[in-house]
Amino acid sequence: MRKKSALSKLGERTKAPPISWLMGLTLMNPKWISLAAGFTDDESLPVTKTRALIEEVLSSRKPGANALQYGATNGDPELRRLTAARLREQDGARGGANYDAARTIITNGSQQLLYMVTEALCDPGDIVLMEDPTYFVYLGIAQSHGLRCRGIRLEEDGLDLAHLERVLDELKRRGQLPQVKMLYLVSYYQNPTGITTSTAKKAGALELLRRYERAAGHPIYLLEDAAYRELRFAGDDVASALAVKGAAERVIYTGTYSKPFATGVRVGFGVLPEAVLAIVSRIKGNHDFGTANLLQHVLARALTSCQYGQHLGVIQRRYAQKARVMMAALREHFPAPVQWQEPKGGLYIWARLPERMKSRAKSRVFKQAMARDVIYVPGELCYCEDSTRAKPNHEMRLSFGNASEAQIREGIARLGKVISNQ
Amino acid sequence: MRKKSALSKLGERTKAPPISWLMGLTLMNPKWISLAAGFTDDESLPVTKTRALIEEVLSSRKPGANALQYGATNGDPELRRLTAARLREQDGARGGANYDAARTIITNGSQQLLYMVTEALCDPGDIVLMEDPTYFVYLGIAQSHGLRCRGIRLEEDGLDLAHLERVLDELKRRGQLPQVKMLYLVSYYQNPTGITTSTAKKAGALELLRRYERAAGHPIYLLEDAAYRELRFAGDDVASALAVKGAAERVIYTGTYSKPFATGVRVGFGVLPEAVLAIVSRIKGNHDFGTANLLQHVLARALTSCQYGQHLGVIQRRYAQKARVMMAALREHFPAPVQWQEPKGGLYIWARLPERMKSRAKSRVFKQAMARDVIYVPGELCYCEDSTRAKPNHEMRLSFGNASEAQIREGIARLGKVISNQ
Repeated sequence: MRKKSALSKLGERTKAPPISWLMGLTLMNPKWISLAAGFTDDESLPVTKTRALIEEVLSSRKPGANALQYGATNGDPELRRLTAARLREQDGARGGANYDAARTIITNGSQQLLYMVTEALCDPGDIVLMEDPTYFVYLGIAQSHGLRCRGIRLEEDGLDLAHLERVLDELKRRGQLPQVKMLYLVSYYQNPTGITTSTAKKAGALELLRRYERAAGHPIYLLEDAAYRELRFAGDDVASALAVKGAAERVIYTGTYSKPFATGVRVGFGVLPEAVLAIVSRIKGNHDFGTANLLQHVLARALTSCQYGQHLGVIQRRYAQKARVMMAALREHFPAPVQWQEPKGGLYIWARLPERMKSRAKSRVFKQAMARDVIYVPGELCYCEDSTRAKPNHEMRLSFGNASEAQIREGIARLGKVISNQ
Repeated sequence: MRKKSALSKLGERTKAPPISWLMGLTLMNPKWISLAAGFTDDESLPVTKTRALIEEVLSSRKPGANALQYGATNGDPELRRLTAARLREQDGARGGANYDAARTIITNGSQQLLYMVTEALCDPGDIVLMEDPTYFVYLGIAQSHGLRCRGIRLEEDGLDLAHLERVLDELKRRGQLPQVKMLYLVSYYQNPTGITTSTAKKAGALELLRRYERAAGHPIYLLEDAAYRELRFAGDDVASALAVKGAAERVIYTGTYSKPFATGVRVGFGVLPEAVLAIVSRIKGNHDFGTANLLQHVLARALTSCQYGQHLGVIQRRYAQKARVMMAALREHFPAPVQWQEPKGGLYIWARLPERMKSRAKSRVFKQAMARDVIYVPGELCYCEDSTRAKPNHEMRLSFGNASEAQIREGIARLGKVISNQ
């Protein structure tokens, strides 16, 4: 008799990440040009800065020992204070409880916070609304928790509010609003499309969610994932949903210091409504009762010493340059019917091929690209399982984060040939 | 109409940790002598060592950038290799797949691994066997996941195997074995009792679990939490359950570099059966796709440079001294009927008052201790909810980890007076 597994339902549901095979292949083929990885730029990693900051943090016995001891579950009080103050300034906000340090929490990258918020709010069968397409690691979280997803279309300035309303309306008619827990929104230079949702649209989305809450019977949260906010290299910053009137009890904001500073120093943060923070904080207690104190002290020191701000300038210029290189290569090598939008921040360009030209892992395009030692993330992987539509299958996420300028030029040139040959 | 909450079932179940009120009180009363905190010794934290190690890790551009970039979800390959090799040596094992680096994973403290293993294996209603008493943060994990717990009594050399067998037998008769997923065992200098379970008993436990698997219909795992293993200051090391024949597919071993090195550098690890590792690794991908690379590189450097080993010597002598101070104070100040066992490692002494003398938070003993500015962890908090017995309520966990020698002497003297006055 074959034994049944001892796995939980979550254990059985949790699938391998859709790009793990891609990452495995890349590791085995170090000469490949990867435009797939979401890794950040190697050359600008602040090696000297970090060494100097840690030397400062550990330069004398008492503060040094503090940094090497356990800290509080919700994070280092100084880093929480700095985080709240910084957000308030970025949002151009005068005050308001939304930017209270007591509402912040420090986590292992913002990824951990996305996970814990989902744990805190969602049961199997619950529904999460999200951009169509969206961050594929979040799709893994949703899938492992047995959630149903509904994709909301994107326009050039972000979420399509008319579509959001139609979806909410349909869920209401079907009596499914009680299962709707939140709208997950990657609001800045979105992964994968690069699109930013305007503050006006965030306000509109919040208003819509609020309008359907009565039928839901409970709050519907806006989970704003601002992971790429600081990787802005053109245009103005946009206020977060926290700045919208009435946001205090409905907006869950997540951000990170990892991507803008160093991804090997994993420190994320969030601002949450009190009721949600109370639960997430307990879950954090069970996960790990606090993010490594040393990393938090390094970040706090980086923020107060202006090293963080200086480094931000460096990487913003660096990504601007790499984005320009990718744009120029796209214009030179990609045939006319392929479309893309110029990014103003983040790490990605989203290329849309003609619909007849498939881009998924088993497509000719993907295979021919691999044969030329170039890989990208097939757009299909960024779409949730939404039974109301087929997954688009003619797009590619092209990352200019980790590849060198020479690799970007060469990679795009080879991809251009592949596409032109279809 | 009052709105219902939008919380998940897990969110609703997840309670505040039982000692959070105690920690809050301690923070507000910095002059209190806390024999409650599980914090480690401040004075021996390796401030200078860590600074030097990080300087080395970040001394040149390329390895420095590697440490500051994202790493692999399962952890830095070098640290995984070192971890497996070290465990093999500690266990005096010659080889065997159990100590294969491919079976290891690096996590945010071993706490995260306890959480993920529970997620991977347990559904609400499932049963976990555990020591009676056990690590109270694990009780929080179990409770938040809606698990049922059965406490297994402890003897001087660890788990009471006869009791384990009776419990398994009873669960079998009731048809509840299919819900039994694992035995959670804090095997070295246990938190809270200081008891170590012998290798022979681990082998016995594994054999028992194996015997009941047929009726369970699936594997029943032994989750060995070795968090305090390296804080040994007397007696010989004891081989882990990994060294037991047939362990490869049933033992989940968790350990940590945080307590022995620096708790602000949160790096834990585990060795898992392949089938479980595959799932836990995916869950880790959803949690945070990898522990901060910088911390892992620091630990790998500490291990290879022998700084880790040297520091271990330092803290082992330090805790030995603090344990001696506490033992001497107990002998001097605690009245005769109070019993305890001399610790050979770890951070705790478990004092058993006469049964009539209650120790819980609302007891006279606890209140009078607080009035004298001393706190301990009421033993009751370390017992799981097990409907087959009442929770013992006459014990105290006394930690010599964080308090200074003077505080230990004074704290125990004051507690002794409180107890003598009952």
